[in-house]
Amino acid sequence: MSYIAPVKDMLFDIEHLANIEQIAQIPGLEEAGLDTARAVLEECARLSGDVLAPLNVEGDRNPSRWEAGRVITTPGFKEAYQQYAEGGWQGLQHPPAYGGQGLPKTIGAACVEMINSANMSFALCPLLTDGAIEALLTAADDALKATYLHKLVSGEWTGTMNLTEPQAGSDLALVRTRAEPQPDGSYKIFGTKIFITYGEHDMAENIVHLVLARVQGAPEGVKGISLFVVPKFLVNKDGSLGARNDVQCVSIEHKLGIKASPTAVLQYGDGLAGSVAEQGGPGAIGYLVGQENRGLEYMFIMMNAARYAVGVQGVAIAERAYQKAARYAQERVQSRPVDGSVPASTTIVHHPDVRRMLMTMRALTEGCRAMATVAAAAYDAAHHHPDAEVRKQNAAFYEFLVPLVKGYSTEMSQEVTSLGVQVHGGMGFIEETGAAQYYRDSKILTIYEGTTAIQANDLVGRKTARDGGQTARAIAAQIAQTEAVLQASATPAALAMARSLRAAREAYLEVVDFVVGGTKAAPNAVYAGSVPYLLASGNLVAGWQLARSLLVAQELLAKGQDAPFMQAKIATARFYAEHILVRVPGLRDAIVAGGESVMALPNDAF
Amino acid sequence: MSYIAPVKDMLFDIEHLANIEQIAQIPGLEEAGLDTARAVLEECARLSGDVLAPLNVEGDRNPSRWEAGRVITTPGFKEAYQQYAEGGWQGLQHPPAYGGQGLPKTIGAACVEMINSANMSFALCPLLTDGAIEALLTAADDALKATYLHKLVSGEWTGTMNLTEPQAGSDLALVRTRAEPQPDGSYKIFGTKIFITYGEHDMAENIVHLVLARVQGAPEGVKGISLFVVPKFLVNKDGSLGARNDVQCVSIEHKLGIKASPTAVLQYGDGLAGSVAEQGGPGAIGYLVGQENRGLEYMFIMMNAARYAVGVQGVAIAERAYQKAARYAQERVQSRPVDGSVPASTTIVHHPDVRRMLMTMRALTEGCRAMATVAAAAYDAAHHHPDAEVRKQNAAFYEFLVPLVKGYSTEMSQEVTSLGVQVHGGMGFIEETGAAQYYRDSKILTIYEGTTAIQANDLVGRKTARDGGQTARAIAAQIAQTEAVLQASATPAALAMARSLRAAREAYLEVVDFVVGGTKAAPNAVYAGSVPYLLASGNLVAGWQLARSLLVAQELLAKGQDAPFMQAKIATARFYAEHILVRVPGLRDAIVAGGESVMALPNDAF
Repeated sequence: MSYIAPVKDMLFDIEHLANIEQIAQIPGLEEAGLDTARAVLEECARLSGDVLAPLNVEGDRNPSRWEAGRVITTPGFKEAYQQYAEGGWQGLQHPPAYGGQGLPKTIGAACVEMINSANMSFALCPLLTDGAIEALLTAADDALKATYLHKLVSGEWTGTMNLTEPQAGSDLALVRTRAEPQPDGSYKIFGTKIFITYGEHDMAENIVHLVLARVQGAPEGVKGISLFVVPKFLVNKDGSLGARNDVQCVSIEHKLGIKASPTAVLQYGDGLAGSVAEQGGPGAIGYLVGQENRGLEYMFIMMNAARYAVGVQGVAIAERAYQKAARYAQERVQSRPVDGSVPASTTIVHHPDVRRMLMTMRALTEGCRAMATVAAAAYDAAHHHPDAEVRKQNAAFYEFLVPLVKGYSTEMSQEVTSLGVQVHGGMGFIEETGAAQYYRDSKILTIYEGTTAIQANDLVGRKTARDGGQTARAIAAQIAQTEAVLQASATPAALAMARSLRAAREAYLEVVDFVVGGTKAAPNAVYAGSVPYLLASGNLVAGWQLARSLLVAQELLAKGQDAPFMQAKIATARFYAEHILVRVPGLRDAIVAGGESVMALPNDAF
Repeated sequence: MSYIAPVKDMLFDIEHLANIEQIAQIPGLEEAGLDTARAVLEECARLSGDVLAPLNVEGDRNPSRWEAGRVITTPGFKEAYQQYAEGGWQGLQHPPAYGGQGLPKTIGAACVEMINSANMSFALCPLLTDGAIEALLTAADDALKATYLHKLVSGEWTGTMNLTEPQAGSDLALVRTRAEPQPDGSYKIFGTKIFITYGEHDMAENIVHLVLARVQGAPEGVKGISLFVVPKFLVNKDGSLGARNDVQCVSIEHKLGIKASPTAVLQYGDGLAGSVAEQGGPGAIGYLVGQENRGLEYMFIMMNAARYAVGVQGVAIAERAYQKAARYAQERVQSRPVDGSVPASTTIVHHPDVRRMLMTMRALTEGCRAMATVAAAAYDAAHHHPDAEVRKQNAAFYEFLVPLVKGYSTEMSQEVTSLGVQVHGGMGFIEETGAAQYYRDSKILTIYEGTTAIQANDLVGRKTARDGGQTARAIAAQIAQTEAVLQASATPAALAMARSLRAAREAYLEVVDFVVGGTKAAPNAVYAGSVPYLLASGNLVAGWQLARSLLVAQELLAKGQDAPFMQAKIATARFYAEHILVRVPGLRDAIVAGGESVMALPNDAF
């Protein structure tokens, strides 16, 4: 078994940190209690472990390949996808009205983690479909919803996000793809999109592209961008597939990682032979989503869902790398322990530095999982709670956490997968071992759906400066309350955690003051510190969740529940406090004092 | 031009930090002054830029391959190696008595950096040959020296180090390869060695393997290991090549990086057809180096040379990644600057976070280069200075620095190459771009020639605890002197540096006390902090060298010398102080308070 889903840890977070039973009191989510969570997670663990995980290595060795406009995915992927769709997994979090199961994100996120731990390249296809569903649910008219949503929610069709063009990556103001209005209300789309995940593949019968383009005469920049549905195959009135649309995959990329996930260059409106272009002339037929020129706003709905999910991918790949490294450390025999506890060469898990690496991997993974889980709970409350004020508070908390989940969890995943290679020593560098794949795969996570810098800009601008630091400080106040409880508990672990948490929180508050005070007066200095600010915030909030875990585990341990698990939870939290949280004051120093030196060199000195 | 050697920065370090003119006063090194350094570096820069750098990508795409016992290297490598050998580069640092040029390490190290920046996979072949030469020079008898050294120094033959076996990696006590004494004084060698860099290739006519093996009846463990020369082809009395030895390459590894460098599995004494085995029966013919059972001691000579060189590889790959990222940042247009200084989308070098990444890359690279350069100067003084006391002090300083150069520079190279990918955004993840190769290549550096943990053990045990922290504290005292000079200089940059340096030094001294006090009493806690101690020490010493650079640059700037270069030197040092040195107190906290939590979980909890 190459991957065993950490169901126990997930349920601990869902029950005690996310308070699932409270979520299940929200009207409409009554069936989403702990029992449902357990049942769904156990079923998903089977699918992940038995079906998806074994295909992960195969995807790396035998990636998707392009052949005359078609993409042939890794052997086994198509069948696995069929099982995924038939099991109803695509609809897990989507509305019953369109065939989904309407489960809360608090449960859904754990499943997303499992699927991604098992096979990140595979999981990208459903991840993008989720984003397309979100966008259509929020912005599309009833006709579009009726045509596309059932098929997407069932997994029969898949979705894509088409933002990037060669000159327009982080900067969508530069999008050039154009949309020409047609007499029948549709549009013809012309242009080239790159980096389109699962932009072409053979796992489903239709692909629903969501495409950013400019309608002729639209304003310049981001205010002139509209969003279109452009299906690979047009859809007849009866829901059956019609003509091939004028969109083609002209190549896929040769990448560092996630090799089984096809990254397509798509050409719209180039007059593809055998497509609608043969009757109506060149131009891919597209349908406007919502109103013209509001495309970026709609795309952000997809992006936010996708950003959260990418953060969960960070946790997922870290968990997989941890499991592999832990297993190797328990098997590989090398050298005597430094404390003389064993008189001969022993398994390397005895060696303090191997322990340090494994504990770092474990603490970062559990901390980021806990943070993602409470963020999901906030999302659920923000969307479903009957009380508007509760919704608002939870929305603010969730919005603040999205860049942390995306930015911090993915940055930490690179540290974890790198340590995973290191634990394996020389064997880690050999591709056959498999540790290197996680290292390579994880590298995309800090880049796509907005680089860490883009997340950090969001954190600084929209999430911190806009409300004058209110949300940021409210979180710090909650952390201070947790510190007080730790202090009162007075166990060595709780006191160690309280100490680190306090130092980190105080450093964080200095940074918040710096950011709020300087965004307009000294934008370069503030944005020079934006990524360190994101790392400090994510570090602190993840540590805070482990502090809460520590308190819960102490309590349950006192009640005699599952001592080995609870003791490990406490030890892991303490490790995080003593080894990870202690990074925050250094980040504060760099942010608050270091802005000037970032920009000191003239541009041409590099 | 894909790589331009940073000759100016190297000469700055060589002149002002390593004080080359002082080295040139040592008898025997009179010709090794600044003019020689400049001439050699400029020539090496041409070879690196024109010949070796263009082959680097080719080596990644078209790696060495194994075919029926032979290894065919990347097209172009053989010819490039010929140019390298004919140019006399292999003999640069070796004694004129064997055909070398006898230049100091202070100059040689800069050349090693260039060759490795240009093409790390290629450079590994000379790097291993250097190690073999060192071992033979120190430990071999005159007959072996006469037979092998001229050909190795000329580059006609290459050398290897054969330590690792499947069960014996970091733990050489587990070596099983055996040596059977023969009546003529030679030995027959039997066993399997793995991970042998350039263990087989087609670039030179003979390969001189240095092999660790046990003579029958030798003591168990590391005290029963001997070192042997085992040439691929035996050497006749007249120096011509004789029969093929009974050693064969049975496979090479498929690796994450440095793909052009063949990593061989070598089988000794398996009765290779067409070899000496056909007459004399199976067994590779080997010749004892020095005395029986002292093999590990001799191998450490090679290892120490190689460890320093691997540290320089870290600097080299970081420099290459920096150059690529800096160029991209100056070309790629995306988004408006946050300070409104340009009204339209502009090159990304304007964006504060891109700057932060480039400055981090640059500061780490320059800091580690400076540290390696002063270490090289200490090596030269330790080996050649007429005064025994000066030799001794320099030897202690050099020995202390080797684990820092190896451990810190290679760990930082992974941070730098990762940032290099990140600066490229989505393009960084596409293999065609080339940034990902450096990221992959660098991952071996923290593993081979002793993992970072092995370097850290060395730093804790042999370099710190053994002399009761004397060398460690002597370095701190020198740093305190530099702080005083900075304080007196009183410029904003000098004061910023003094502040960070002081905080880092004080934290470091606390760690030294902890290490010295606890190595025997609490070995697990000390060794749990060994890698963080190494990182703190490396960070501090590299920062100290940049502090010295800052002072020199201020002085030369006042004299009107090369203002743009000197200003950049000052700004880079200040960035290091404000963004990198500030990590040290957090490491101190983790080491001094965090030992217990590293070992808290039972072994089976992972």
